[in-house]
Amino acid sequence: MSNSLVLVLNAGSSSLKFALMDAQTGEAILSGLGECFGLEDARISWKRDGEKQELMLEEGGNHHEKAVGIIVELVESMNVGEQLVAIGHRVVHGGEKFADATLLNDDVIAEIEALSDLAPLHNPANVMGIRAAMNAFPSLPQVAVFDTAFHQTMPQKAFTGAISSELYTDYGIRRYGFHGTSHYFVTREAAKQLNKNIDEANFISVHLGNGASVCAVSNGKSVDTSMGFTPLSGLMMGTRCGDLDPGIIEFLLKKGWSQEQVFEALNKKSGFLGVSGLTSDARGILEAMEAGHEGAKLAFEVFTYRVAKYIGSYLIPLDGLDAIIFTGGIGENSLPIRRQILSNLKLLGFVEDEAGNEAARFGNGGIIAKSQMMDAVAIVVPTNEEFVIASQAASFA
Amino acid sequence: MSNSLVLVLNAGSSSLKFALMDAQTGEAILSGLGECFGLEDARISWKRDGEKQELMLEEGGNHHEKAVGIIVELVESMNVGEQLVAIGHRVVHGGEKFADATLLNDDVIAEIEALSDLAPLHNPANVMGIRAAMNAFPSLPQVAVFDTAFHQTMPQKAFTGAISSELYTDYGIRRYGFHGTSHYFVTREAAKQLNKNIDEANFISVHLGNGASVCAVSNGKSVDTSMGFTPLSGLMMGTRCGDLDPGIIEFLLKKGWSQEQVFEALNKKSGFLGVSGLTSDARGILEAMEAGHEGAKLAFEVFTYRVAKYIGSYLIPLDGLDAIIFTGGIGENSLPIRRQILSNLKLLGFVEDEAGNEAARFGNGGIIAKSQMMDAVAIVVPTNEEFVIASQAASFA
Repeated sequence: MSNSLVLVLNAGSSSLKFALMDAQTGEAILSGLGECFGLEDARISWKRDGEKQELMLEEGGNHHEKAVGIIVELVESMNVGEQLVAIGHRVVHGGEKFADATLLNDDVIAEIEALSDLAPLHNPANVMGIRAAMNAFPSLPQVAVFDTAFHQTMPQKAFTGAISSELYTDYGIRRYGFHGTSHYFVTREAAKQLNKNIDEANFISVHLGNGASVCAVSNGKSVDTSMGFTPLSGLMMGTRCGDLDPGIIEFLLKKGWSQEQVFEALNKKSGFLGVSGLTSDARGILEAMEAGHEGAKLAFEVFTYRVAKYIGSYLIPLDGLDAIIFTGGIGENSLPIRRQILSNLKLLGFVEDEAGNEAARFGNGGIIAKSQMMDAVAIVVPTNEEFVIASQAASFA
Repeated sequence: MSNSLVLVLNAGSSSLKFALMDAQTGEAILSGLGECFGLEDARISWKRDGEKQELMLEEGGNHHEKAVGIIVELVESMNVGEQLVAIGHRVVHGGEKFADATLLNDDVIAEIEALSDLAPLHNPANVMGIRAAMNAFPSLPQVAVFDTAFHQTMPQKAFTGAISSELYTDYGIRRYGFHGTSHYFVTREAAKQLNKNIDEANFISVHLGNGASVCAVSNGKSVDTSMGFTPLSGLMMGTRCGDLDPGIIEFLLKKGWSQEQVFEALNKKSGFLGVSGLTSDARGILEAMEAGHEGAKLAFEVFTYRVAKYIGSYLIPLDGLDAIIFTGGIGENSLPIRRQILSNLKLLGFVEDEAGNEAARFGNGGIIAKSQMMDAVAIVVPTNEEFVIASQAASFA
């Protein structure tokens, strides 16, 4: 086996996850996270040879660029030389243009930028990370792995909006879906763990993080997903509203709100933050709920109820169900949130395996419930988007 | 038994349904429909003593007032005298203010008008009907029966939007739900037919007409429903989009669409009409589909798929399921649409009773499917909002 390494960059709106990873094994010899970009406690932390380090980033300037600069220094200090064969970038929105991983050049970057109005929180951040990495590693292939690519198998009845067909033909307005790399990874991993052939496996994949989405996977392929034309739709999220009565927007505009105020509210002041009036962070919600905070309790109830309703609805496109998969920061770690979602699934026969649910945290997966009505389980699978990105990027080296 | 009559007026945006009805038996001695108001083929038709008549309405002027004038003449010609004890009005949006049928006076009318921006297609039409009837029958009690009232039992987790809680406290933005009178009637009727006590019966009630909504009914009470703050949300409808990725609205506004253009498109050019590019009428969709029209076929598939997904999601708030109830113009009559929805429910074990489904049309109800997985059926129940309105209005006489 070759020992080819890929640097994986996963730039979010205020964060940058990175890993220097063996593209065959998924072993990361360096991994880290820049976070709170744009805020005064912006920082970058990493783990190498079992040692953790953290640096605060100076206020001002472009934190994405500063973070990439630090990552470049880290990689250079490791003397990996020619083992580093590619840079893989997670890119959120590939529209209908990108159904597969794609080698980046100026034209591709321009197309990703042109898709920025579809994912205003994400694509510009992705491009920032790409440009910084191209400056730092000009001789290596840089590969974009799109969050939308996995969902390009959705049938037309699932991706078509209940709106004028001209909005599709004129503007490309349709459901694209996101978190595709994560849904792809965890469904393959779940199939392995459950001894199913992925081409015959049926899953409802539930990715719950600061962004959140559900995906129905029939015979290994995405057939529906809760995010749509933009990452604002579907489930309630940290600060995003998810699916919304469009009449609410009309109402607020008529009340004199500006367009900017309305969409700022829906993108950045809704979800956990908006309902609780407290925080966008699920851990903070749970702590406040335990302390008796009513808004936090309501946010917890609304979130878990809505996730369960999406799971119920995604029985429809499937011919069978092998497993409900929980992943993402909340899905992998939050015992009370998973417990409440499972409790909401009682009419589908799901009974929590309490010990399993308690054990499946902090990087450990496993079965957390079984259905007494369907031949199905609920399982936690820690996601590893970086590994998918590394594998796909290495194929261009 | 007294023989008290109620005149029931159900004013839509371009129509006025009416009935002169025995409030105890529901027997209508006169019933009719004004339709196409505002268009050149505006007309009113009625049935009395088994005889049908139709009048074209002159172009121009207020067709709601003209229609009420004709109805008054009809009622007076029938010499019902003191048997006419009340006028019952269907009113679409009662906000949180009206949880029950309410005697109309100037203050109540003002409150209904104040709620008009929540239901711009409906409340102004309701008030037109109320004013015309008050002028015509000044001495009779006039009673508003609200489409939102039945849903006031929804728990907070179901009626809370995943948006800032201040939008609820400042503006009353929350899920209200509509079609409450219909969901109320058909669930009571289904309980009777299935020999269930309504207080222990669990239903998913599917009202499919030009407007459409799904309601989860637990122990006889509404616990969730697909329409929300306005009647624009939830299912795809004749011309309405239903639930929408709010990012689509932001996108269109940034593309230079005016607010009026956007919400005109979502209210009046979406749904069956928008997806098919052809017609808002379900019968027209089915005919065109049979003739090979691709847009009509897509509209049929998107609509039936979305209805089925809502049914799947409404298993979540229920502790059990006795029946899925189909009602409304499409739900009562459209065999192919019901067949496709049932086919989409196969993972819930539903198997169509083909003879039952074929028989349950044109005013005939009955069981159309049984689930092999749950102890549940699918049943058609013709709705009778007028009877509910007559009963509730008569209680004020």
